Amino acid sequence: MKIEQDLLAKNDAYAADNRLTFNMAGVLALNLVSSPGSGKTTLLVETIKRLQSDLPVAVIEGDQQTSMDAERIRATGAPALQINTGKGCHLDAHMTGHAFEQLRPAFGSVLFIENVGNLVCPAMFDLGEEHRTVLISVTEGEDKPLKYPDMIRSSHLLLITKIDLLPHLDFDVEALATNARKINSGIKILKVSAKTGEGMNAWLGFIRAARSLALTGLESRVTV
Amino acid sequence: MKIEQDLLAKNDAYAADNRLTFNMAGVLALNLVSSPGSGKTTLLVETIKRLQSDLPVAVIEGDQQTSMDAERIRATGAPALQINTGKGCHLDAHMTGHAFEQLRPAFGSVLFIENVGNLVCPAMFDLGEEHRTVLISVTEGEDKPLKYPDMIRSSHLLLITKIDLLPHLDFDVEALATNARKINSGIKILKVSAKTGEGMNAWLGFIRAARSLALTGLESRVTV
Repeated sequence: MKIEQDLLAKNDAYAADNRLTFNMAGVLALNLVSSPGSGKTTLLVETIKRLQSDLPVAVIEGDQQTSMDAERIRATGAPALQINTGKGCHLDAHMTGHAFEQLRPAFGSVLFIENVGNLVCPAMFDLGEEHRTVLISVTEGEDKPLKYPDMIRSSHLLLITKIDLLPHLDFDVEALATNARKINSGIKILKVSAKTGEGMNAWLGFIRAARSLALTGLESRVTV
Repeated sequence: MKIEQDLLAKNDAYAADNRLTFNMAGVLALNLVSSPGSGKTTLLVETIKRLQSDLPVAVIEGDQQTSMDAERIRATGAPALQINTGKGCHLDAHMTGHAFEQLRPAFGSVLFIENVGNLVCPAMFDLGEEHRTVLISVTEGEDKPLKYPDMIRSSHLLLITKIDLLPHLDFDVEALATNARKINSGIKILKVSAKTGEGMNAWLGFIRAARSLALTGLESRVTV
C-alpha cells in the first residue's frame, strides 16, 4: 500500500512535468484508454488521415509487446513511437515523458497516446494529458461504466465505437450513456464508426476545439 | 470537521447535477474567482460587449450584499441574476443551480458566474463549472499563487488583469506566472486589460474555443 502510494506520487510528479512541457510546446495530448479490441488503433489511423493535411500529429503507442500498432500508425505518415511495457499493464508518466523527448512533435501538434488495452491499470496513472478519452465498443456491455468507474470518472470523453455494428446487435446506446453519466456527470459522449466514418466529424471537431483551447495563451505568452 | 465534510460532499453532489444540466443545455459555465477589487465585473462588462453580438451570454453574480454588480451587467443587455450570500464568503452549487433555473440561458450560452471576492472560501466549492478562472491584478503581489495554492490548483486559467498599469508598477509578471505554474503546472495564463483592450482577443479566443468544446457531442447527441 505504501509502495503503491509512493509510486503514484512519483507518477503524479512526472505527469505534472509532462503537462507543463506539453503546454509550453503547444501540444494537445490525448490519452486513449480502453479494453483490448475496442478499436483504438483503427480509429487513430482514420483520425490521422483526416487531420494530418492541416494539423501536425504524433503518436505514442503503448503495448505490452510488439510494435505492430506503431507500424500501422507510421503507414499513415505520422511519426509514432512504440513503448513496450513488458509485464506492465499501463503507460506511466515517466516513460511518456521520455517518449515525448524522442518524438519532439512540432509546435501545435496533437499527440495521441494509445495506452495499453486495459480498463483498470491505466486509470490510476496520469500521463499529463489534457483529455483522457475512453473507448467502449458496442460489442461490449452497457454496464461497463459501472464495472470500471475509475476509468469513467477520470475520463473527459467517452467514444462509443464500432456503431456500424449496431443494427446487428442488441445493444442499448442510451443505457451505456446513462451509466456513464451516473459515474461522471460531465463526461462528453460521442458515437463513432471508423469503418463508415459516421460520427467522425464530431470527434474531429472535439480534437480541433480542444487544440484551439490548448493553444490559448500561447499566442500571448507571458514570456516576451 | 465532520460537518465540513458533509457540507462539501453535499455541495459536490449538487455540482455534479449542475454539470450535467449545463452539459445538456449546451452551456459553457465559467466560475470567476479573485480577491475583491481585481476587476472581475469590469472585465465581464467588456467581455460581454464583445461577445454578445454572436453568442448568448448570461451571468450569475455573487456578492455578500448589494446587487450593484448585476445592475452593471444588465446595463450591457445581458441577463444577470444576483445572489446575496449574506455571511457566506462564497457561492455554492445549490444556490448556483437555483439561479440557473431562474435564468434559463439559451442553448449554447456562455454562463459567467462571478463568485464572491475572496481567494480562500470559493476554492473548496465546485459549482459545476467547466473552467474555473482566477483573476490576479498586477496591483497585487507576485506571491499570491503561493499564498492561495488551493485556488490556483483548482483553476484552469489565470487572468492577470489591469496590465495597463504595469508601466507604473514594480510588478514581475514572469515571477507571478512561475509561481502559479509551481502550484499548477497545467494552468493557462493570459494577460488582459479591460481598460485598453490589450489581451482581450486571447481571452475571447479562450472562451470561444472552450464553448466549441462544450458543444462537442451535442450536435451528435446520443439521444435520438
